[in-house]
Amino acid sequence: MRARPLPPGVDGREFTRALAAFRAALGERWVLTGDAVGLAGYADPQPVLDAGHFTASAALLPASVEDVRAVMRIAGSHGVPLSPVLPGRDPGYGGAAPRLPGAVAVDLGRMNRVTEVDAAGGYAVVEPGVTFHDLDARLGELGLKYRADPAGPRWGSVLGEALERSAGGAGYEDAAAAPYGMEIVLADGDVVRTGTAALTGGGPRPWAPYGCGPALGPMFARSALGVVTKLGVRLRPEPPARRAYAVTFAREEDLGPLVDILRPLLMDRTLGDTPTVRGASPTAPAEEPGTGRWHLYGALTGAPSVMDAQWSVIHDALAAVPGVRFHRAGERTGPERPFADETDDWVPDGGRLDLTPVSPATGADALAQYTLARDLAHAHGKDYLGAFAVGARALHHRFVALFDPLDPGDRARTLALCEALVRATAAAGYGIQRAHPALMDQVAATYGFNDHAVLRLGERIKDALDAEGILAPGKHGIWPRRYRGLGLSTKGVGP
Amino acid sequence: MRARPLPPGVDGREFTRALAAFRAALGERWVLTGDAVGLAGYADPQPVLDAGHFTASAALLPASVEDVRAVMRIAGSHGVPLSPVLPGRDPGYGGAAPRLPGAVAVDLGRMNRVTEVDAAGGYAVVEPGVTFHDLDARLGELGLKYRADPAGPRWGSVLGEALERSAGGAGYEDAAAAPYGMEIVLADGDVVRTGTAALTGGGPRPWAPYGCGPALGPMFARSALGVVTKLGVRLRPEPPARRAYAVTFAREEDLGPLVDILRPLLMDRTLGDTPTVRGASPTAPAEEPGTGRWHLYGALTGAPSVMDAQWSVIHDALAAVPGVRFHRAGERTGPERPFADETDDWVPDGGRLDLTPVSPATGADALAQYTLARDLAHAHGKDYLGAFAVGARALHHRFVALFDPLDPGDRARTLALCEALVRATAAAGYGIQRAHPALMDQVAATYGFNDHAVLRLGERIKDALDAEGILAPGKHGIWPRRYRGLGLSTKGVGP
Repeated sequence: MRARPLPPGVDGREFTRALAAFRAALGERWVLTGDAVGLAGYADPQPVLDAGHFTASAALLPASVEDVRAVMRIAGSHGVPLSPVLPGRDPGYGGAAPRLPGAVAVDLGRMNRVTEVDAAGGYAVVEPGVTFHDLDARLGELGLKYRADPAGPRWGSVLGEALERSAGGAGYEDAAAAPYGMEIVLADGDVVRTGTAALTGGGPRPWAPYGCGPALGPMFARSALGVVTKLGVRLRPEPPARRAYAVTFAREEDLGPLVDILRPLLMDRTLGDTPTVRGASPTAPAEEPGTGRWHLYGALTGAPSVMDAQWSVIHDALAAVPGVRFHRAGERTGPERPFADETDDWVPDGGRLDLTPVSPATGADALAQYTLARDLAHAHGKDYLGAFAVGARALHHRFVALFDPLDPGDRARTLALCEALVRATAAAGYGIQRAHPALMDQVAATYGFNDHAVLRLGERIKDALDAEGILAPGKHGIWPRRYRGLGLSTKGVGP
Repeated sequence: MRARPLPPGVDGREFTRALAAFRAALGERWVLTGDAVGLAGYADPQPVLDAGHFTASAALLPASVEDVRAVMRIAGSHGVPLSPVLPGRDPGYGGAAPRLPGAVAVDLGRMNRVTEVDAAGGYAVVEPGVTFHDLDARLGELGLKYRADPAGPRWGSVLGEALERSAGGAGYEDAAAAPYGMEIVLADGDVVRTGTAALTGGGPRPWAPYGCGPALGPMFARSALGVVTKLGVRLRPEPPARRAYAVTFAREEDLGPLVDILRPLLMDRTLGDTPTVRGASPTAPAEEPGTGRWHLYGALTGAPSVMDAQWSVIHDALAAVPGVRFHRAGERTGPERPFADETDDWVPDGGRLDLTPVSPATGADALAQYTLARDLAHAHGKDYLGAFAVGARALHHRFVALFDPLDPGDRARTLALCEALVRATAAAGYGIQRAHPALMDQVAATYGFNDHAVLRLGERIKDALDAEGILAPGKHGIWPRRYRGLGLSTKGVGP
């Protein structure tokens, strides 16, 4: 069994004592060390830096809120940094890798109960380990024709998808940070519930939205300031009918008019669900049926008569684009295809590094985003690969850089491309909302107003809630006091 | 000129020195003292406690972010508590009254610029003093057929409406806590921007949604932890057409089926905008055209062909309720009637005390809310007066207790009614999301999970960001360290 790198500043004997305490609290088998950590994947699955860089020193698998509290208390008393892990582990963002090399992974996958389902209320309460597959299965057991809203990849954590503000989904593109009640374990082991989940008076359904006072839940999105152990998530009924559509556009420059046509239809809800515009695969044969430079995918849902009227308006609006081709599917049932999980197989066993810039949903912004990314990709010897989730106001651009993890030159080129794209995106006034650990500090630094006031605010709150600096150090650029000034940040401001 | 009550713990000479410093910073005329404070309305307009209770000791009228920073620094160095005031001053929630008696009002009404309009991006950036009227006027000047989304009362602050999470609006009932970029002045004078407003790279539109990392903006909703000086708010285009509808229901018990019929139509967006169900005025003549026990109001917007199809589905669904009457208006243009501003004139010069419980949008919950409030109102010698904003998942119940502010017995009865309603609502598992200063501590205390963990969290953050405890002490139950344990809280936990 090989020794694994320890977190910075943690003494080997102290770490051994912490492991013993973790084992006593969780049981031997729920504390992984040595080779088991790598085998279980608590590292960057497709490393863009050297393979050992973003790797956990050990992994803990708590099964309950009490376990998580115990883990926090032990970590605090031994000064051992932790890195929460949710199922899903999006490889484009580093999978289950900790931001701080050597941090101990806290895999929340065993906490996988759906603790409440209120179909009429339109919500369920999930623990972190509940995947979309699990939730669908539970709804099926209960005989409920409901599903998670928005839907996500079947292997992904429902809670994680909500808290990481993934793109896609069903018209909530600017609402994902406003979840229902939450349960959070703070770094000192205190347990907080927000929204009506905090009500103690009893009653049948304590997880509906809203509390009074400041909205304290959203700060726990992105897993940097606390461990969310339960979350109320939206359900919606299976619609009376669903009608998928696919539309292809011939020319590169069609992206602009396409987005400008979709926006007002999204704003007035003729289009109720966020469609996706995907760039053609650079390896796809040009003559395949349905190909074109851009592919628009989506689905209408609702009463057939309403969908007929909606589709007629949508069709007529899009028909104005020369060369447009409609590939309307018939009625469809069952879950939609999730967004952003269909590029991996284009380079088998390849690595990917993703970036998600967000802009207003205008044609000019879409084209600016696209040309920026395309030109930088080409300048670094790569194809453009990406997709846009088009909301009424927010356009999520998911840019994907594919690379060969075994080729050091390609890795360096890929990292350089993404770093250049972060700089160019920020300079153009667009925000990047999600990034790989290798890019987190750089992305956070682009939000630089008033000497990085928002980052300083995050660090003030971090220090107030996590005095020992044990929880997710460096996540999204927020370094606790203990790690600031040690040169751990890869780019830009602090630590 | 009568002397006004000082805030607790503030020495008279210190207060005089602070006023001199405020005058030096803002100019003589922008610091109100003595009778001018009452005349300008920095007190509870319809006091349910004795008239002088929730009254400011002085008022400051800053015109800029620099002014607000100066006010914070002076207040901090003299230990003078402040209470931010936005236009609108909803009388049911205490108007411009400070929670802490004697706190100095900071009226943000002079900061009234629309600093950015991006129609294609679907947002504008407003300062706190911008009313819906101001924003509409500015959009008109620019020749833009857009309006705030959701709309609000014309005299109300657009920023205030968004941050206080008012009910009503346009399908965003669970999203109001997820605004666009914000600018916030902290109690120590630091200025933070969140979301893409923090980007420093330049670019044309820095106020679109999203930053990276934890969502730190929402904690500044409700004005307890910082002063929000700019906010990105949604716009939407004037729809191709609008069709208002009004439907009346004859029987008390129709409220349940009505809400259960609306919910799936809201969930699948056949109904895109939140309708209102209003209880009949107890003083309305029963034979007036269009009367009934419950009045459903709303409007469809969009393409006429889509509205035709939608209305047909909605009509057929509601027609199942016996005694239903449809009063469908024709095409309508211009702004919708705002919600919840039409009861005042039922008791001329009367006071009102409002409470807004939120529940899942089910018929059972609506009926439970209604019977609870009705029975308590009757037990306290009052009529039931209220309305429901019906969202896809959240049902906002705005309960209104009317009273005679000159009758001490009626005031006491009204307060007792509302206190009883807070207890009963919480016991039934419903959250109250907005309350008058006289009820804030009691409402906050109902969120009691784990020894009031969410309130303790709010106070930890309060102490980290506002060490001197100067900003909005006691707002929504959050008391800074300096005021805890002094017996200032009216009910329940702390201070």
